[in-house]
Amino acid sequence: MARKTGSHSEITGPKIRAEAQRLFARHGFAAVSMRQIAAAVGVQAGALYLYTPDKEALLFDLLKSHMDDLIAAWRAEAPEGADALARLERFVRFHIRFNLERAEVVFLSYMELRNLSEENFAKIEGLRKTYETELEEILKAGQAEGVFLIPDTKLATMAIIAMLTGVNTWFREGGRLSRAMVADIYWDMVRKAVGA
Amino acid sequence: MARKTGSHSEITGPKIRAEAQRLFARHGFAAVSMRQIAAAVGVQAGALYLYTPDKEALLFDLLKSHMDDLIAAWRAEAPEGADALARLERFVRFHIRFNLERAEVVFLSYMELRNLSEENFAKIEGLRKTYETELEEILKAGQAEGVFLIPDTKLATMAIIAMLTGVNTWFREGGRLSRAMVADIYWDMVRKAVGA
Repeated sequence: MARKTGSHSEITGPKIRAEAQRLFARHGFAAVSMRQIAAAVGVQAGALYLYTPDKEALLFDLLKSHMDDLIAAWRAEAPEGADALARLERFVRFHIRFNLERAEVVFLSYMELRNLSEENFAKIEGLRKTYETELEEILKAGQAEGVFLIPDTKLATMAIIAMLTGVNTWFREGGRLSRAMVADIYWDMVRKAVGA
Repeated sequence: MARKTGSHSEITGPKIRAEAQRLFARHGFAAVSMRQIAAAVGVQAGALYLYTPDKEALLFDLLKSHMDDLIAAWRAEAPEGADALARLERFVRFHIRFNLERAEVVFLSYMELRNLSEENFAKIEGLRKTYETELEEILKAGQAEGVFLIPDTKLATMAIIAMLTGVNTWFREGGRLSRAMVADIYWDMVRKAVGA
């Protein structure tokens, strides 16, 4: 079979990322070697270093791409000009859906932060803060509109995100409730929690 | 200085557990060797095996003790005969306080579950379920009393526990809010979320 056209990095990049993500999620970052990742991709370990300087850079790349995607997807979906209640509902449904669709990298984002360099950790924390601020702005707007009754918008932001991301730890496809039903129930709880 | 009286296991057991917990939390279970734990305790690696059959048994021991303590502490504190609203408030304050006081082992309980054997994992999951049921019983009682308005007590249980445990990820001693203020604010959000 003829080799496909395209640069080396175009062909192996996504595959390296996919295999690294799968292996890190399954065994933990510390327990996975560059050699194992190379074997899973079907290249020599040396070829991996053409793509990434080291294992930490690969982890950072996965977590950063995830945060970039999350923020971009939310900004594309956020209803512009809508009132705070409508924006909060959209945020709740978006967060649950986006995270369930990317359970593996969400899991890594919580589990492997400590394996980032200090500098890369700060970058991921910055992106996380950017995302949290999107929610906090909605909560502040709702307070200003007199629609929400929240004692502390910062804490409400952290509480809502923890609650929503928690769905990933127990949700099973084909279980008692569909994703849509789960989103409905969480939206009911969040709406009440912010006093709307 | 004379050696203290007491059996070998009485003296080193708590120290082994403390050092293992500290090292697992700092570096991750996979990255820590029995030799490192022994060095931190100040004994030979061989001596460690008098106390525990292997590293996984040590992890299980830490996580199981934590869950046993959590359940026992809650049952000792749960206000008997009180109405659901009072019991829920007590639960919220208890959970935040207990988890903040044991941040290291709580962190391990989330991070290192995958490193347990299937059998030990099932035991920890069973204990977690027992604890969750304590909360769900309160929510069901509140529904029966007509005080709570919850679309699904199972999901509300998961949502509340995720929200409360999330405090551990951002709370810093000496920050903007004291533990008591955080507990007050979370209680306000939980109370509203359950429609009370």
